[in-house]
Amino acid sequence: MKAELISVGTELLLGDILNTNAQYLSKELAALGITVHHQCVIGDNTARLAKLVEEAKQRSDLLLFTGGLGPTADDLTKETVAQVFGDELVLDPEELDKIKMYFECRGGMPHNNEKQAMVPKRGKKIPNSCGTAPGVLFEDGSCTAILMPGVPHEMREMFERSVRGILMQMAGGAIVSTMLHVFGPGESALEEMVGDLLEGGNPTAALYAKNCEVAVRVTARGEDEQQAETLREALVQKFRDRLGDLIYSEEAEGLERVVVSVLTRQRRRLATAESCTGGLLAQRITSVDGASEVFDFGAVTYAAAAKRRILGVKPAAIKKYSVYSATVAAQMAFGVQKQGKADFGVGITGIAGPTGGTEEKPVGTVYVAVSCGHEVWVKRLSVEHSERSRVRRMSTQHALDMVRRIALGLPVPDARRFGRHAVEEF
Amino acid sequence: MKAELISVGTELLLGDILNTNAQYLSKELAALGITVHHQCVIGDNTARLAKLVEEAKQRSDLLLFTGGLGPTADDLTKETVAQVFGDELVLDPEELDKIKMYFECRGGMPHNNEKQAMVPKRGKKIPNSCGTAPGVLFEDGSCTAILMPGVPHEMREMFERSVRGILMQMAGGAIVSTMLHVFGPGESALEEMVGDLLEGGNPTAALYAKNCEVAVRVTARGEDEQQAETLREALVQKFRDRLGDLIYSEEAEGLERVVVSVLTRQRRRLATAESCTGGLLAQRITSVDGASEVFDFGAVTYAAAAKRRILGVKPAAIKKYSVYSATVAAQMAFGVQKQGKADFGVGITGIAGPTGGTEEKPVGTVYVAVSCGHEVWVKRLSVEHSERSRVRRMSTQHALDMVRRIALGLPVPDARRFGRHAVEEF
Repeated sequence: MKAELISVGTELLLGDILNTNAQYLSKELAALGITVHHQCVIGDNTARLAKLVEEAKQRSDLLLFTGGLGPTADDLTKETVAQVFGDELVLDPEELDKIKMYFECRGGMPHNNEKQAMVPKRGKKIPNSCGTAPGVLFEDGSCTAILMPGVPHEMREMFERSVRGILMQMAGGAIVSTMLHVFGPGESALEEMVGDLLEGGNPTAALYAKNCEVAVRVTARGEDEQQAETLREALVQKFRDRLGDLIYSEEAEGLERVVVSVLTRQRRRLATAESCTGGLLAQRITSVDGASEVFDFGAVTYAAAAKRRILGVKPAAIKKYSVYSATVAAQMAFGVQKQGKADFGVGITGIAGPTGGTEEKPVGTVYVAVSCGHEVWVKRLSVEHSERSRVRRMSTQHALDMVRRIALGLPVPDARRFGRHAVEEF
Repeated sequence: MKAELISVGTELLLGDILNTNAQYLSKELAALGITVHHQCVIGDNTARLAKLVEEAKQRSDLLLFTGGLGPTADDLTKETVAQVFGDELVLDPEELDKIKMYFECRGGMPHNNEKQAMVPKRGKKIPNSCGTAPGVLFEDGSCTAILMPGVPHEMREMFERSVRGILMQMAGGAIVSTMLHVFGPGESALEEMVGDLLEGGNPTAALYAKNCEVAVRVTARGEDEQQAETLREALVQKFRDRLGDLIYSEEAEGLERVVVSVLTRQRRRLATAESCTGGLLAQRITSVDGASEVFDFGAVTYAAAAKRRILGVKPAAIKKYSVYSATVAAQMAFGVQKQGKADFGVGITGIAGPTGGTEEKPVGTVYVAVSCGHEVWVKRLSVEHSERSRVRRMSTQHALDMVRRIALGLPVPDARRFGRHAVEEF
């Protein structure tokens, strides 16, 4: 079944409001296995709306409308769609009573509200439990149109209570999907690794790059839930086999969530010492509910003096290797591990830009160190040609992934491992 | 000029992401006096996209595309639009070099990235300052198509830097606009204060609520820039008269920017001690280029023990007033002011939720203290009925606004002022 969403309202075309209805309905339809192949927004204009409805009716089996059911003169969705579907609107006494009752304690019904009580003769009305405008359904054999209010909470209520049931009957079958969250390879590198798995028709998989990581969505459709789940699981397993521990979560997004949950389970604690990331790492960890189980203390030591005073970084190390060095990152990690009485210390120092780079260590050079006991893992990153915020975000991604890997006993790719007093520069 | 927005991406049709690009562009075009009469979303499917572009080209003078410029096989906007506009794509050596450089330190360019360097032969390319995919422009006499990336920050950057200028030339005349950034009243309170100033036709003003503050955009159109600027300035002055120091900036957004620039000018320094905001304040300050001029040290003291050890908060105060108190916030501020050898100390402690609230101090109760010399200003916030992230964001907003006001000698509304040893609970 091919579906199409049509949002009616000049306020959307002016950018005054965000079209959250389209996202909500798209997601709900995807979950029902109904393919949305167009979303449109159109203003309160009869001629343009009629033209759009005619086109949409040709190419789609199901049209879902939001908006334009209200009492004012520019609310014309119902009248226009009725015309295109060759249906007629008649006054529904029951709806009229409801509307009159609603306005009774509000000083009487303004006359223009009567038109909200008009319902299709051949089609049917859909009850609105939290507003005065009922939804309506038009049908003409090959195509079904469902009209809902534009106010998001009214629309959702109507969808939940009535429309979803109607659509389930129309669609039949079940659909399930999973998100795999991957850190390490970028979107195109990942596509080269799993390109062949992205090509099937059912189950399907797709990549979504965002926030310095990539998500893989695996969706399957079946005659019932059981069958859909079996199909999905088979494809998910192929991704697991291919990607292994690059998949950091099959549930919620965010390396910080995984770190908080792994350390909570292990009853271990983490402390952070940040220079160029300026508190972003602490902020990400503490954004997770329950972070206080694993996190007591973070230091943002921007100045070299603060690195010495708070974390005990050795002036000699700064002088010899500069503040942007593996040695200083490691000393920051051990220093904060001690100060915070933690099991893990993280030290991050580097050049977020836009200034401060040198030829040998350009903007985007960041050292990330994670200490645990008397050992430390250090990565040198080169987040080049990137803006400040991306350098910062990417640095925290690596720090969190390193903690995850060390805590779980996984290998830490691209990191070097040293004893406390044996850190080498690289 | 009639315009139409076309967003390309299956992730929009699946409801995985919200189409914020459509709202942003609609608003920007409205400000330029360009009428948007259609917004469409379509999947990564050549045939359907081509059909849509053909229809859109018939009915509109300007088509703005977002999405589908990336390296993967399903990124096909550029190829499809080129075909409909009868243009040809050729490899641009300059863009290819940029992309190769970007991938140099990432282990080499995956082959599929080459297609991002293809640009129109007859049309032109539009530089992308924060991504690898350039934008492109196609023209065929009656219609212009502009293709931008789908990633919101890349798209906005490209729009600000290049596309707005192109559209202004197309629209004719001159348009100037200013953003006034306001912190304090919420959107509806602000609307009550300045509602009458939002009604004119030219110049126009509109409110944009976001991130716990409100921006006012004042736009004027004139035959030339001079005339437009005179009109704009007259309306801006009315907002200044009405809002006074609630306007924290007429330039860049972000209280952190104002704080960094004011303190840099005054050669004063700031240190931060955060509990419930978990590093967000330090992160916001250090996100500003040049933050090292004013910021050396921030502490994220999540545990009571860390508050004592690092900041010298008195156990007796915690016992008597709890960690969520004016006294503890003030001691955190003075403690970090001393530790960081700074002129200002900020202490934030409170309950970000979702758990930890009590009847007397529910979730959303936050104490923000700013010390300066031997004095301290303390605010008690009640960010009620809010999620964790909003409580955190709002707390940092107040902290930054307090620092701005104290540094500039402005009154600090809703704050109480105490001597170092005379803090009272409230």
